Amino acid sequence: MGDKEEVKLLGVWYSPYAIRPKIALRLKSVDYDYVEEDLFGSKSELLLKSNPVHKKVPVLLHNVKPIIESLNIVEYIDETWNSSGPSILPSDPHDRAIARFWSAFVDNKWFPALRAAAITKSEDAKAKGIEEVEGGLLRLDEAFVAISKGRSFFCGDVIGFMDICLGSFLVLLKAREKLKGEKLLDESKIPSLCKWADEFLSDDIVKNVVPEIDRVAKFLGELEAIAQSASRS
Amino acid sequence: MGDKEEVKLLGVWYSPYAIRPKIALRLKSVDYDYVEEDLFGSKSELLLKSNPVHKKVPVLLHNVKPIIESLNIVEYIDETWNSSGPSILPSDPHDRAIARFWSAFVDNKWFPALRAAAITKSEDAKAKGIEEVEGGLLRLDEAFVAISKGRSFFCGDVIGFMDICLGSFLVLLKAREKLKGEKLLDESKIPSLCKWADEFLSDDIVKNVVPEIDRVAKFLGELEAIAQSASRS
Repeated sequence: MGDKEEVKLLGVWYSPYAIRPKIALRLKSVDYDYVEEDLFGSKSELLLKSNPVHKKVPVLLHNVKPIIESLNIVEYIDETWNSSGPSILPSDPHDRAIARFWSAFVDNKWFPALRAAAITKSEDAKAKGIEEVEGGLLRLDEAFVAISKGRSFFCGDVIGFMDICLGSFLVLLKAREKLKGEKLLDESKIPSLCKWADEFLSDDIVKNVVPEIDRVAKFLGELEAIAQSASRS
Repeated sequence: MGDKEEVKLLGVWYSPYAIRPKIALRLKSVDYDYVEEDLFGSKSELLLKSNPVHKKVPVLLHNVKPIIESLNIVEYIDETWNSSGPSILPSDPHDRAIARFWSAFVDNKWFPALRAAAITKSEDAKAKGIEEVEGGLLRLDEAFVAISKGRSFFCGDVIGFMDICLGSFLVLLKAREKLKGEKLLDESKIPSLCKWADEFLSDDIVKNVVPEIDRVAKFLGELEAIAQSASRS
């Protein structure tokens, strides 16, 4: 693509969403510059200019052009470097539709339920939320069995779109388990998904881009302490 | 594709989401059977079996295989009948990313704000919500000018992905204007988007699949009356 190829990713180290383009770029063997944003301090001019609507990470800048929203970035990477590395989305339109459907389920239903359960002050709402999250994981376990057909990942033997989507939350789940003893990845309930999670997290590309579980657990603990002290004052 | 080609769409006549696959199928000249669901009565076995997760329309059944969620269906139609009719998503990866970004803005930010404003009982929340909806339309007007570059539709001279996404809500906006005098499509504020809306609604394919504004206005009025009588009892 000539001399001018410039790929820059704006992210924060703890964001599941920022993990997604990192995995996709590595799958496609694309070199990129990574810029860590400070969402608690002041956001960079580049972030504000690149994503004026949401002012959020991740943002991919490809030859200065911004691409926004994590799964949108993953699709862009798949389409732009289509001849390099494995295909991230399956080639069959129906398989693609299934991958997009479950990814939307994760991003629009499952994770919002987890986030709401994590921040609510009502014990009742928290319990209901966690129930919804567990129900979602049961559905995802069933979906994995149906879609993967015995292969290691959702759409085959290598990591693809749906793996990246759901897999990006695994470190967060494990950090919450460490911090709170909240066992969402329960082998007795969702054995196939737990096996998939182990496969995913032991993949060389993934290992290189996900943060350490302990570091995320410490960070979540700090965030929680700040929230509690704010609600007391 | 041989004798077995069977395309069936489950929808409800008033749903903006169900309009989307109808437009896409017509753009691709795909013959299909349409099944009107009764979401207020009992949902069909076919709907419940095809979409057990959300139990919602639209569902596209292509040779019995279900495809779920309106924009996912539109992408599936574009990819499956790729040699027939115009391309619904642009071919350039960056243009595709822009179309997907703004479609996500419409579905995840803009329309939820409108729906929340429509159902809240608090006048304050309603006013704030409408302000957010109007702010979103200003952004979409700017986006249209930037993306369309003087052409009739978001990505060119024919209807594409983003046109289908936002355009599917136009009849609803016009019905609300008729019912409540709520003028969201205000030429003095969003002239380019209003011009686009007129172009979109006068397109032959669109005219054939969108419901009549008066019929939707009457339906919205009936829904409102039911909600009011329920809140009184």
